[in-house]
Amino acid sequence: MKFNKHLNDIKTYEAGKPIELVVREYGIKDVVKLASNENPRGCGKKVKKVVAENIDKMSLYPDDSMYELKQKLSKKFGVKNDNIIIGAGSDQIIEFAVRAKGKGAILSAKVTFAMYDIYAKQNGLHVIKTPSITHNLDEFKKLYKLHKDKISIIFLCLPNNPLGECVDKKDVYSFLKDIDKDVLVVVDGAYQEYASFKDKSKKISPKNLIKTFPNCLYIGTFSKAYGLGGMRVGYGIAQKNIISNLYKLRPPFNITSLSLKAATVALENEKFVQRSLKENLKELKKYELLAKKLNIKYIPSFTNFITFLFEDEKNSTKISDLMLKKGIIVRNLASYGLNGIRVTIGTKKQNRRFFEVFKKIYM
Amino acid sequence: MKFNKHLNDIKTYEAGKPIELVVREYGIKDVVKLASNENPRGCGKKVKKVVAENIDKMSLYPDDSMYELKQKLSKKFGVKNDNIIIGAGSDQIIEFAVRAKGKGAILSAKVTFAMYDIYAKQNGLHVIKTPSITHNLDEFKKLYKLHKDKISIIFLCLPNNPLGECVDKKDVYSFLKDIDKDVLVVVDGAYQEYASFKDKSKKISPKNLIKTFPNCLYIGTFSKAYGLGGMRVGYGIAQKNIISNLYKLRPPFNITSLSLKAATVALENEKFVQRSLKENLKELKKYELLAKKLNIKYIPSFTNFITFLFEDEKNSTKISDLMLKKGIIVRNLASYGLNGIRVTIGTKKQNRRFFEVFKKIYM
Repeated sequence: MKFNKHLNDIKTYEAGKPIELVVREYGIKDVVKLASNENPRGCGKKVKKVVAENIDKMSLYPDDSMYELKQKLSKKFGVKNDNIIIGAGSDQIIEFAVRAKGKGAILSAKVTFAMYDIYAKQNGLHVIKTPSITHNLDEFKKLYKLHKDKISIIFLCLPNNPLGECVDKKDVYSFLKDIDKDVLVVVDGAYQEYASFKDKSKKISPKNLIKTFPNCLYIGTFSKAYGLGGMRVGYGIAQKNIISNLYKLRPPFNITSLSLKAATVALENEKFVQRSLKENLKELKKYELLAKKLNIKYIPSFTNFITFLFEDEKNSTKISDLMLKKGIIVRNLASYGLNGIRVTIGTKKQNRRFFEVFKKIYM
Repeated sequence: MKFNKHLNDIKTYEAGKPIELVVREYGIKDVVKLASNENPRGCGKKVKKVVAENIDKMSLYPDDSMYELKQKLSKKFGVKNDNIIIGAGSDQIIEFAVRAKGKGAILSAKVTFAMYDIYAKQNGLHVIKTPSITHNLDEFKKLYKLHKDKISIIFLCLPNNPLGECVDKKDVYSFLKDIDKDVLVVVDGAYQEYASFKDKSKKISPKNLIKTFPNCLYIGTFSKAYGLGGMRVGYGIAQKNIISNLYKLRPPFNITSLSLKAATVALENEKFVQRSLKENLKELKKYELLAKKLNIKYIPSFTNFITFLFEDEKNSTKISDLMLKKGIIVRNLASYGLNGIRVTIGTKKQNRRFFEVFKKIYM
């Protein structure tokens, strides 16, 4: 059977190895997973409690209007309900955006969230990337001007996954001024909580962003700071005409009943998030220290992970594999064309184990 | 901002009203929802237990290979792992199919699952429908021959939602013989458990189906008989080349960690399903009896719902609204162009309440 042509170009996303797989393949039981930037503290206690109370409702479809969750989000961000769309992870918002607006090409940093590329190719679009791996807005501007007739969507990942750098808000705003109002700019804030906690100059307010630049779509998630990676809830915030068009592509019941409850309650539990951000930053500094000690090049991170870039005499695939055999899962960046690894900042205990094992393997 | 043109034609799916909304809008607390064909018995006890035990893992992404769930499904159906793809509800498998194979037009019954139409339009495809509202395979064949150059996918909903009828397996097989091997035929078995329990001649074996007709994609779900509507898990079974192409469109982590656990354990709990099917059939007969008594036209059902079609002097919208005000949610079929309602077969107690209220309103 023949399938639609543009499928030929699609590579499937390589997810971080799950603990179950390592247990299965290597027979190691005490596995530390520092590969998928989950919150190692789990989620808030109240969230767990409410989900437990709602287990009896697993048979019932969720409230597809997502009334309560939207109410809470609109209050948090100072926007209206019809400025919000909920997705099965923020990935799904990216997918809606690409399918609703994508035409010709998209523009992104060279090394950034893999799903921009994947969704673009799923829809037969070209992907134009900057020469620099991290976000360089001058390069963005140059390429935008060069391919103005082709580019329909620009992706800014602030801070950037999988590298961790973050452009200042003022530079983002200055860049946005020169972008045509018919080009959709997706500001992916999946890790924004971490960036703005570390450095106020990185903070993007969705309300102000979409008011100032009505062609922007802000994206957030419950998967990282809120500790609900396994529950698949993200959101998009934009002007009403953008949201209503994305809505046309939203499948009914796109998040589960328990996910809806979990995300709603998570928003009442901001203390948990603040504590996570604080602990994360403290532990992150230990990784930077280690890198300095071992003379490893690293990208200063505004997230809950750090990227180490190795010199030629070290090999990221080899190192990742050796770590894996010791029960520590990190993200090898070879599939991004880099000789490096991305490590999620774990709990104090998990990080201590990482340091021990990594030092032995690396040195 | 301008969006892609084919979005103009898209109507969004109208989901059954959730209990939360009725409570909110009408202030009624004791609401009976017979609108979305959920299993009114909930799900199995063991499923609830395992989900409760896994609440601590909400922060972790699921095993994206879905190894265990696929193992269980492959054992149940006697197919291989690479004949299976998991979706966020069976809806998502439909979406993958339309996006991977859709070109020109799709063919379906006049009144059938709304998502075929919606996904087709999302992808700029035409929808060709039979004149009859229920499945009439002669009409399917005629239209297929007439539009052979255009039709890329045929949807058979066996049994059909929202009408409840079901074509015999032998007639399906006889129809499939005449279909070109490059046309994808989606056999939507979301309610197959109910149909084959009531009448063996309706039973479709995915294994035999895809062996005999390698251009078929069988679709199943955990949302109905398995009582996990709120958890969004469905599956597709087909030859490897079909599955691998659908896989290219599957977003990573497309079901939640708890959904993965729930579905996996649900497959160990077939007794719960069998009891549900038995009770459902017993209660369904009461609805048929009521219809006969009140002289209401109904479609003999092979599912967990029944469709009443009213004469002109009765109005389905009026009746649904009156029922709603009494705290009973049914599905008005006006949006399908029918003067009728679809009622989910509830528990004995729920049905008793339906009968009481409905009789008063209808007579």
